[in-house]
Amino acid sequence: MVLLEEKDLIGTAVRIRLTGRRHEHIRKVLKAKTGDELCVGLLGGKIGTGEILSIDDKDVEIDATLTKDPPEPLPLTLVLALPRPVVFKRLLAQITTLGVKKIYLLHTARVEKSYWKSPALGEKAVREQFMLGLEQAKDTILPELKICGSFKKFILDELPGIAKRSRVFVADPGSGAAAPACPGEMSTLVIGPEGGFIPTEIESLARAGCAAINFGKRILRVETAVIASIARLANF
Amino acid sequence: MVLLEEKDLIGTAVRIRLTGRRHEHIRKVLKAKTGDELCVGLLGGKIGTGEILSIDDKDVEIDATLTKDPPEPLPLTLVLALPRPVVFKRLLAQITTLGVKKIYLLHTARVEKSYWKSPALGEKAVREQFMLGLEQAKDTILPELKICGSFKKFILDELPGIAKRSRVFVADPGSGAAAPACPGEMSTLVIGPEGGFIPTEIESLARAGCAAINFGKRILRVETAVIASIARLANF
Repeated sequence: MVLLEEKDLIGTAVRIRLTGRRHEHIRKVLKAKTGDELCVGLLGGKIGTGEILSIDDKDVEIDATLTKDPPEPLPLTLVLALPRPVVFKRLLAQITTLGVKKIYLLHTARVEKSYWKSPALGEKAVREQFMLGLEQAKDTILPELKICGSFKKFILDELPGIAKRSRVFVADPGSGAAAPACPGEMSTLVIGPEGGFIPTEIESLARAGCAAINFGKRILRVETAVIASIARLANF
Repeated sequence: MVLLEEKDLIGTAVRIRLTGRRHEHIRKVLKAKTGDELCVGLLGGKIGTGEILSIDDKDVEIDATLTKDPPEPLPLTLVLALPRPVVFKRLLAQITTLGVKKIYLLHTARVEKSYWKSPALGEKAVREQFMLGLEQAKDTILPELKICGSFKKFILDELPGIAKRSRVFVADPGSGAAAPACPGEMSTLVIGPEGGFIPTEIESLARAGCAAINFGKRILRVETAVIASIARLANF
């Protein structure tokens, strides 16, 4: 799907002119020609189909009718200890595609401090991954990324509110409880860093009302654990 | 876990000497010293703990007792249209960590032919990803990778046998049936390439007994789809 912003619209008839990455993608990957139909969606708005009016090496013009609502969001909030930047970047697009709309990023004992200086955390870099993730899922609603920094601050300032609005789980391979399936139910999943939470962090989370659950006996890399545990919990 | 091969054993007391990647990992990542205990496992055999007898910049010697069985394999076979080589490489280690023990690789209409020339398909490159995946999961049983090439050949030669031994599913976002959870049950999951199977391929799979199932309405990238659908189907 081609994802648009208000500034791409050049008339009330929802005529669109695109240059840059999306123009290149339509021309070189989709190999679309005049008269072809594309799936388009307006950032924050509806999705629909567009017909290519003209396309050349400069730009593409499209007439679009935006009638359908974007897909339902996944009723799951993700709280993630900041992973290695290259993993974070890949995960961000994948999480967006899965339909997660709120992501908290935490510093914990086993997160490398240097990760917080990565350009992957920059507003532009994050938005780029969000856009790629939305396009893949034919979705138009941007997720929200909240950078919490300190673990303690998250426990004190954010978790109580989250726990009022949803069931909260922490993925803990050492726990005895197998993950439940909560389709359609608001849930929040807390996932630690490579190497896991330290015991006092698990205790703080438990005191704040997080239920420890496991996703099998195998210890997964963060990258695998995030996708697998969202799939299991949201049961889509 | 440090994964060993028969040739690493230097006596009947299961004394081990390691150089190369695993030595470097123990020294620089785990920062282990003489007297420290490590989790070790013998490729194809048991797992247990080892005590470091000596470690320097040349090698590490370990005394190990291998007593425990590796974790149960996941009762799930994966049939995968060859993805982009960089994605294939990453997936191979992740699939191994999840406990999949048999992987078939297919050529289908929407697989780029050039992918088959990638060094990522070489025996050594595949084994390296398998080893990394096993170490992550504290497992010792190597998966088997079967390169089928042609889609037709797979349908004729392999699928009938697979369908006798397990329930066979094809991930098809267009299908009406939501994925079931088959914990503990032998199942086989067929996943198409980026862009999906073409309709005649889906028909061939259906005629051969594959049940089409979806994992939600969102179209996922292959990389996300493989992990999410294994997690959902195996329900670990």
